[in-house]
Amino acid sequence: MRHVRHAVILAGGSGTRLWPASRRGRPKQLLPLGPDGETLIAAALERARGVAGDNVLIVTGEDMVAATHDAVPGVPVIAEPVGRNTAPAIGLAAATIAARDPDARLVVLPADQHVRDRAGLVALLARGLDELEHHDVIGTIGIRPTRPETGFGYLEIAAGAPGPVMPVVRFVEKPDRATAERYVASGHYLWNGGMFFARAQRLLRELDTHVPAIGAGVRSIVGGAAASEIYAGLPSISIDHAVMERAQGVVTIPADVGWDDIGSWAAVAELLAARGPTVAVDGSDNFVLTDDDTLVATIGVSDLVIVKAGNALLVVPKHAAQRVREVVDAVTAQGLLKYL
Amino acid sequence: MRHVRHAVILAGGSGTRLWPASRRGRPKQLLPLGPDGETLIAAALERARGVAGDNVLIVTGEDMVAATHDAVPGVPVIAEPVGRNTAPAIGLAAATIAARDPDARLVVLPADQHVRDRAGLVALLARGLDELEHHDVIGTIGIRPTRPETGFGYLEIAAGAPGPVMPVVRFVEKPDRATAERYVASGHYLWNGGMFFARAQRLLRELDTHVPAIGAGVRSIVGGAAASEIYAGLPSISIDHAVMERAQGVVTIPADVGWDDIGSWAAVAELLAARGPTVAVDGSDNFVLTDDDTLVATIGVSDLVIVKAGNALLVVPKHAAQRVREVVDAVTAQGLLKYL
Repeated sequence: MRHVRHAVILAGGSGTRLWPASRRGRPKQLLPLGPDGETLIAAALERARGVAGDNVLIVTGEDMVAATHDAVPGVPVIAEPVGRNTAPAIGLAAATIAARDPDARLVVLPADQHVRDRAGLVALLARGLDELEHHDVIGTIGIRPTRPETGFGYLEIAAGAPGPVMPVVRFVEKPDRATAERYVASGHYLWNGGMFFARAQRLLRELDTHVPAIGAGVRSIVGGAAASEIYAGLPSISIDHAVMERAQGVVTIPADVGWDDIGSWAAVAELLAARGPTVAVDGSDNFVLTDDDTLVATIGVSDLVIVKAGNALLVVPKHAAQRVREVVDAVTAQGLLKYL
Repeated sequence: MRHVRHAVILAGGSGTRLWPASRRGRPKQLLPLGPDGETLIAAALERARGVAGDNVLIVTGEDMVAATHDAVPGVPVIAEPVGRNTAPAIGLAAATIAARDPDARLVVLPADQHVRDRAGLVALLARGLDELEHHDVIGTIGIRPTRPETGFGYLEIAAGAPGPVMPVVRFVEKPDRATAERYVASGHYLWNGGMFFARAQRLLRELDTHVPAIGAGVRSIVGGAAASEIYAGLPSISIDHAVMERAQGVVTIPADVGWDDIGSWAAVAELLAARGPTVAVDGSDNFVLTDDDTLVATIGVSDLVIVKAGNALLVVPKHAAQRVREVVDAVTAQGLLKYL
């Protein structure tokens, strides 16, 4: 008998990197940046359903539950009372699922990513869950790198390992440019895309081993204790630091599915066409996005990101797009909260 | 007995150079770009009233009459059925005034200029009207140049002429940069600011002499003929070309009153502070104007003009601000009339 397959969508996020489109209570997964104009979380839900049918559970911040329900109606949501990074969120989801289905196999998918080849990714995730029928591994989807990206973590795989499921030699943090170039050239490094597969019980055991407070905390919440009291006391730590870098027998399935992180407006500009009416005189390669019918006219400027969303407008060169947080910080410091 | 003093405000304009704030039916004189946030035409009205009390007449396009009444309530307005440049407009105003007051002395003021020292200008205009009590001259206010501007016409005055009322040697068209620099260095050239003083009858006689169709046309309109039929048939010509460059005995009064034309967003940026909430991270000298409460955030950009007005947004370097017309042309060519 094949065990029931589950998918967990991680839908946290603070809404700063894609400001002003993303806001407090409207982080990027709720933006209509999917390939067909759907929200990113709706696109993630399609991937999740492709591998788990209706057994999908979303974890999101308490203040985003209503907006998440609006974006993907009918999908069960559990709320983080406060943000505590991915390890407690995944732990809470795993404990919730394991309480109903102790043999559950699950995949974990971030809600805010771009995947061009959905069917290809779904097939690899299904392959990962198949692997769990035979081996109690912890697995990750390793993205074949297409550029020497310094904004991602990498996985090292053994030279010459047979596929498709390969042992991970080690996880490495975001490298500098020269290191990233070496990684990509070697062919033995993959991007850590933040997508995992494991049995729910195995994830909980790993948390018990490496960060026992999280394992105990999420079990007690599922057992009936007040999440509002317990969750805030859990360590804020990523699943990478808490489990993946420490666990034994971590495997990966290399993927070449047109995956990308949507970490800045520059990334959006790479993935999407401009949205909204535009007129450009001279200049080129500006990325323009408006959430209403505002015409954006440019003369003699190039490589700019111009985003008009709600009551705010952002103008930034693509190469500086990762600095949006500085604007959000400045707006916060000036107390202009209605713009956040 | 001193004759009654009149002022004519020329309030034409097509609304392209300050797009998207200016629009069809809302040219720049109707924008709140005055020193205290009033419209430019309201600021012009203050200057006109300073010299002519309530004897002020506005000439504007037929499609702007209602908006003009809204901006400066209670001021008489005569409408140009179509735009025919300044000579027919001034002629129509002069004929209208002369029909009621054959001895009228008048000043002509554009509606869309910046004047820092209003009292100083009013005093010079009054001095011009005083001159008309003794000499039937045609006069212009000559602006002491503060930069080698290539966007204005110039007046040459005779070296060593006693002031304040001086003969004009000649009018010259917009010069190239080197010529403009020579003009400014010489001290014998003034900017043609488009402000005139003359007896109404003298203006009409000059039109009769140099462009008889205009003299006859505006008189027949004032006599009761249908302006809609006659006005469109008049030559489209500026008062400079029609009269000032050809008439005998043209004089000027040099002025140093903080005058400037508002011919582009770059000029506005020189004269006004930014309007609207802004947050700038790095970068400097951006000019930002919004007509609502939109926050404009910039990162690492400098010397840009960023204007959000109504349903359109413009981003252009200051040095290219005179190219806004190209955007308007492109928008027109694409048939996106709701943005014009």
